[in-house]
Amino acid sequence: MYNELKRRVLEANLQLPSYGLVTFTWGNVSEIDRERGVIAIKPSGVSYETMSVDDIVVIDLDGNIIEGSLNPSSDTPTHVELYRAFDTIGGIVHTHSRNATIWAQAGLDIPALGTTHADYFYGDIPCTRQLSADEIQHDYELNTGKVIVEEFGKRQLDPTALPSAIISGHAPFSWGKDAFDAVHNAVVLEEIAAMATSTRILNASIRIQDELLDKHYNRKHGKDAYYGQKKG
Amino acid sequence: MYNELKRRVLEANLQLPSYGLVTFTWGNVSEIDRERGVIAIKPSGVSYETMSVDDIVVIDLDGNIIEGSLNPSSDTPTHVELYRAFDTIGGIVHTHSRNATIWAQAGLDIPALGTTHADYFYGDIPCTRQLSADEIQHDYELNTGKVIVEEFGKRQLDPTALPSAIISGHAPFSWGKDAFDAVHNAVVLEEIAAMATSTRILNASIRIQDELLDKHYNRKHGKDAYYGQKKG
Amino acid sequence: MYNELKRRVLEANLQLPSYGLVTFTWGNVSEIDRERGVIAIKPSGVSYETMSVDDIVVIDLDGNIIEGSLNPSSDTPTHVELYRAFDTIGGIVHTHSRNATIWAQAGLDIPALGTTHADYFYGDIPCTRQLSADEIQHDYELNTGKVIVEEFGKRQLDPTALPSAIISGHAPFSWGKDAFDAVHNAVVLEEIAAMATSTRILNASIRIQDELLDKHYNRKHGKDAYYGQKKG
Amino acid sequence: MYNELKRRVLEANLQLPSYGLVTFTWGNVSEIDRERGVIAIKPSGVSYETMSVDDIVVIDLDGNIIEGSLNPSSDTPTHVELYRAFDTIGGIVHTHSRNATIWAQAGLDIPALGTTHADYFYGDIPCTRQLSADEIQHDYELNTGKVIVEEFGKRQLDPTALPSAIISGHAPFSWGKDAFDAVHNAVVLEEIAAMATSTRILNASIRIQDELLDKHYNRKHGKDAYYGQKKG
Repeated sequence: MYNELKRRVLEANLQLPSYGLVTFTWGNVSEIDRERGVIAIKPSGVSYETMSVDDIVVIDLDGNIIEGSLNPSSDTPTHVELYRAFDTIGGIVHTHSRNATIWAQAGLDIPALGTTHADYFYGDIPCTRQLSADEIQHDYELNTGKVIVEEFGKRQLDPTALPSAIISGHAPFSWGKDAFDAVHNAVVLEEIAAMATSTRILNASIRIQDELLDKHYNRKHGKDAYYGQKKG
Repeated sequence: MYNELKRRVLEANLQLPSYGLVTFTWGNVSEIDRERGVIAIKPSGVSYETMSVDDIVVIDLDGNIIEGSLNPSSDTPTHVELYRAFDTIGGIVHTHSRNATIWAQAGLDIPALGTTHADYFYGDIPCTRQLSADEIQHDYELNTGKVIVEEFGKRQLDPTALPSAIISGHAPFSWGKDAFDAVHNAVVLEEIAAMATSTRILNASIRIQDELLDKHYNRKHGKDAYYGQKKG
Repeated sequence: MYNELKRRVLEANLQLPSYGLVTFTWGNVSEIDRERGVIAIKPSGVSYETMSVDDIVVIDLDGNIIEGSLNPSSDTPTHVELYRAFDTIGGIVHTHSRNATIWAQAGLDIPALGTTHADYFYGDIPCTRQLSADEIQHDYELNTGKVIVEEFGKRQLDPTALPSAIISGHAPFSWGKDAFDAVHNAVVLEEIAAMATSTRILNASIRIQDELLDKHYNRKHGKDAYYGQKKG
Repeated sequence: MYNELKRRVLEANLQLPSYGLVTFTWGNVSEIDRERGVIAIKPSGVSYETMSVDDIVVIDLDGNIIEGSLNPSSDTPTHVELYRAFDTIGGIVHTHSRNATIWAQAGLDIPALGTTHADYFYGDIPCTRQLSADEIQHDYELNTGKVIVEEFGKRQLDPTALPSAIISGHAPFSWGKDAFDAVHNAVVLEEIAAMATSTRILNASIRIQDELLDKHYNRKHGKDAYYGQKKG
């Protein structure tokens, strides 16, 4: 019944090792079907080499398993919380990709330092506040989602224009209009995180000019965007 | 009519992912046929995996499309400006290759630190000044070309002897006698940019000796060059 | 007689080059069969490309060769000492993998900086004290084992919860419940070592919160672990 | 007549791209046949993809071409000088491999920081003094050889125990008992150079203990060496 959704989620998950974003099983991708109110997500701790379409777990927005015999990713409550709060997103990716994780571990926003960043992210990638001891000990994965949503609220950020966050002491989450778009953004995030580290080594204080950030973001995503081919 | 030119430009574009210079579609190569007054260039936002010779766009030196049904690269006005100003060059490459982009984001010239650099570049790789708000908001891509030309003029640099520039807050442009030579120079630029970052970490103030820069550049490119085989 | 054990140790050794953990022959894996009181280990200085199951050396816990015509790894006394002292471990890996070796050379513990670390290691990866001149000159490889055991004793560490150590001025040892689990941990160690270096560059003083370390270690390894699939 | 020597030198040259030590044609390997007084070396500026055994140039110890129709590597006088001064060596490699070149550009010895280094190099890898303007302008490649020999003389170093040097502002030379051994040492040099850079970032002042340097060098290369298998 959810075969096409599960097939897409399997394929998007398999892109993670192809793009070099994961070691072992350290990543997961989900996609939501908002009309039917279901989310397909990677099972927990299953190897990418042997994963098949039947291993993908389908849940509803309360986290109940609708289809599948395996446990869904232990990060499922984070995915669900993000789908609930950010209604424009259709796919979510979590990885421990090396360079984005470095910034998460450092507890720092990934600053907007150039047009590579601006082509995809309209401003700094926010690093969440640390969770409290209580938030860690109870409903940890749900609270991981909540602290992302809180950060976007507090800074008045648009999740469509800033399709990633990094979790303090942990790693990144990225999202997009569907599972493949989310993986695409996770690849970009990893690349700009790598660039940002070395840029900071060479120049500790530089930032992109605001006008250049606006220009590059809007020539690709603004109402008068002229990058790429016209959508038919 | 422009099939051979388009075939060459396709092949040179496909070298970018082979050499690891691009993520997704973040790069473009063009070549000019000066006798016929036309430039062939990559279409905007098209994947390297599916790109065919018919996708390559042919334009004239005013930027008008002569052949092809797709939009040319959004960076086309930069290419045209460079071909107009630098009459010895025949091919241009733009990428966001990681290490060269790091120096562009840092807003710093890539200093000449060793013979690997000197074998190809006769001095520091210039980083352009920042564009003004007005230059960004109007004719941005044209102004990106103009600021490169301005920098070469102000510093009295020879584009043949310094076949790359980096754009402040953005990324590199490289060029050469044709499209393949431009890609070759883009590969070299990326390698020397990587070396320069770590060299600076080990030794913040060192530079290549002027005599060694002269020697290495001229044993390959000078009038008494003796590197390589005699051209028949 | 020990064919299955030797086959496993061969296969685990061949995983080292697949995972990019070794240059040339710079690594070795062993596994113990505690019931029979024998250890199978890589021969010394033999290339991974040509190694066959008959090259694997079987020794007893006094280091006597039981089966095999080649010299065992020169690091064999270190392996034997670890098997003697840590009775919960079944496999050991030694490599000079780049990033873990960097921390060993720096003479510093690899600090717990994020959940990637906490998912596998319950605290900082200990760096041993330097060996004395006498410990280096006599029974060097045995003393390398002893100094690891001493460090775990002094700090009251559990080798099951901290399956790696780094040797000051040298390189890492990792272990696990069998040879393959030990290789798995060696891969993780290399990745978290790489992340730790760059995290320290961005933020010299940060550490993971204790509660987050507890949470991530225990959701995978604690008595109420819920990561992965239930073991049948 | 020199077919076997040329075949070996071709094969050793082709190992350079396999091991990731070269970009384009930036490297060359030679081997000497001391009985016949000839050296086989890579031709200058020829691509590794198309190089054949007939392209390898055979010269005598005065640099005269004995066999072959192409120009030998422009670095030939450096090779000849090293073969003349270091009579225990049989093969030489020059590359611009990234990490070793970084130390050369920084003008710094690669310090002995761990046992990976000590397994192959008995002490710091020397960085030569800068050449004078006159030494650069006249007989540059010969003087590059001379300055290596001078450095080894001044520091009383044994080229067998320290099979590499780095040239200030330039790049490394490595050598060995034959061409393949020289390539092997060039691979090791590149790895320890990478490790040394990051070790220095983590700990600016650390060095390997002298006793550990002795132990590791001698367990592999000393008169009572016990690493590897007994040579039959």
